Amino acid sequence: MNYLGIDIGGSNIAAAIMHSDYSVSGRAKVKVRKGISETEFCDDIAAAARAAAAEAGVSIADVEYCGIGCPGIISSRTGVLEYAGNLGFRKLPLGSEIGARLGVPVYVENDANCAALGEVWAGAAKGAESALMVTVGTGIGGGIVIHGKVYSGINGIAGEVGHMTLFPGGEQCACGRRGCWEVYASATALKRQTREAMQANPDSLMWNHAPDLDKVSGKTAFKAQRDGDAAAAQVVERYLYYLSEGLINCVNIFQPEVVCIGGGVSNEGDALLVPLREMVLRDCLSGENIRMPRIEAAQLSGEAGLIGAAMLGRSME
Amino acid sequence: MNYLGIDIGGSNIAAAIMHSDYSVSGRAKVKVRKGISETEFCDDIAAAARAAAAEAGVSIADVEYCGIGCPGIISSRTGVLEYAGNLGFRKLPLGSEIGARLGVPVYVENDANCAALGEVWAGAAKGAESALMVTVGTGIGGGIVIHGKVYSGINGIAGEVGHMTLFPGGEQCACGRRGCWEVYASATALKRQTREAMQANPDSLMWNHAPDLDKVSGKTAFKAQRDGDAAAAQVVERYLYYLSEGLINCVNIFQPEVVCIGGGVSNEGDALLVPLREMVLRDCLSGENIRMPRIEAAQLSGEAGLIGAAMLGRSME
Repeated sequence: MNYLGIDIGGSNIAAAIMHSDYSVSGRAKVKVRKGISETEFCDDIAAAARAAAAEAGVSIADVEYCGIGCPGIISSRTGVLEYAGNLGFRKLPLGSEIGARLGVPVYVENDANCAALGEVWAGAAKGAESALMVTVGTGIGGGIVIHGKVYSGINGIAGEVGHMTLFPGGEQCACGRRGCWEVYASATALKRQTREAMQANPDSLMWNHAPDLDKVSGKTAFKAQRDGDAAAAQVVERYLYYLSEGLINCVNIFQPEVVCIGGGVSNEGDALLVPLREMVLRDCLSGENIRMPRIEAAQLSGEAGLIGAAMLGRSME
Repeated sequence: MNYLGIDIGGSNIAAAIMHSDYSVSGRAKVKVRKGISETEFCDDIAAAARAAAAEAGVSIADVEYCGIGCPGIISSRTGVLEYAGNLGFRKLPLGSEIGARLGVPVYVENDANCAALGEVWAGAAKGAESALMVTVGTGIGGGIVIHGKVYSGINGIAGEVGHMTLFPGGEQCACGRRGCWEVYASATALKRQTREAMQANPDSLMWNHAPDLDKVSGKTAFKAQRDGDAAAAQVVERYLYYLSEGLINCVNIFQPEVVCIGGGVSNEGDALLVPLREMVLRDCLSGENIRMPRIEAAQLSGEAGLIGAAMLGRSME
């Protein structure tokens, strides 16, 4: 069986054919053009789909369905993209538009939810009864998968854990409120915390990895910590505290079997996961008869969304 | 059709027969005896069940199944009460023990989850696709119902929203951590905040409703606020702020169709709900295309757990 997955990002529309064994072939990419009409946007998505099918040597008529992961607020039941700030579209009936172009059934879901679905079906949370995916990037996104299906709430955006208030009245968030978890624990926050520590510590080894403040990345503090730098170790420790506080809330509320951490910061591997597991498992609700969740790094990195999109139809069976 | 519901509380085992239209008849109660054996405890539950059936004029053989709501950690799949601190039992196979005594299928679920199920099937959240029940009492408990079924996570205790950290490093919670929501927004917290305000305001009208500090209840500040007392109004306003901050997190994460507030404080009705709705809906993730959750007071009060327990089997169909 072949399934067509499409992952709409900020810059590219990625498409590929996924097979029954979760292997992927025929990857294709089309740039997201700025300021185009809805019709042109849908044409571009269909073009990416056809390119992927051609590349994989499969006819579109031979795919079971097309699954689309898209940022923004999606009504997955109707396939309507209700609102996507970055793309500038509102009330775009993506499902029916793409269905009309490709002649196959189309499923549409929020991209963060697709990434969670991908990790549950084919990645770090494979086979988990329940999983929470927390994607740490510019902000903190999330997705919830229960019994192999996305749980997306009334607005298609459940799992938006990044806007959990962790420090009421704390630092300003782009959402308009204060003290949201993502203001403290996103990659953006880590970079800010790294820059502040570098300015306060002109001799820190962090400067070796980022000769000027514009070069600071989410890796800078982790690298300098490995070099034995004390200021960097403090940045990492503080950052892990912020990350763990939000994760503990998530674990206590959801009791998921697996918490899957995605985004660039998850590439730090054990430097992130070992202390994070210790902090979360020490402080979440626990007891003799309480099973602890597994805390894992995402495995599919950039492809989780694509694979999850390709799984949308199967997950609903 | 008749369904047998059993609600095990701290003091009583309540049992009743529920009918297809959610009407309840044949209520019976048996005291929870202290220090009894597992066998005696199960015998008492079965006795309560038989008394309810007799009272309703129904034979036990004529009930479809028996549903049990019980405090503690329940493995609903196996019907085993893994751990219940107050009752003092561990690894008690409640499902099979009661099944053997009554000769009908038995379902077991955590009591907070049963209360949530009751409100979704027959109360304030009737028909909701997804609902979060938040019970504000000695602590803050919670239950999650999605598509008419309890979601209880790997430990049967998902929805334990009371132990969400809201003020990291804040006041000490009985769970061992600091700054949990329930330390600020439970009925216990409201009583503490009321007493503190009374001590600071010897002329407050709160003293009319509670002539000494031992008489303070969750109603004291609400009553004096209605009398026009400024100090009481401040207590209520601060308490609503604490309650709303946690609810906003719950709404942002779950995106439930209904948030149902249970426990004694929900009896305040509009004095609680009107400002609470305003605060939560103003500050949760919102936008032109985002549907807001309904925030409602629980309707079934003391019977939600019993009705939810009686619904357990039907909810799994």
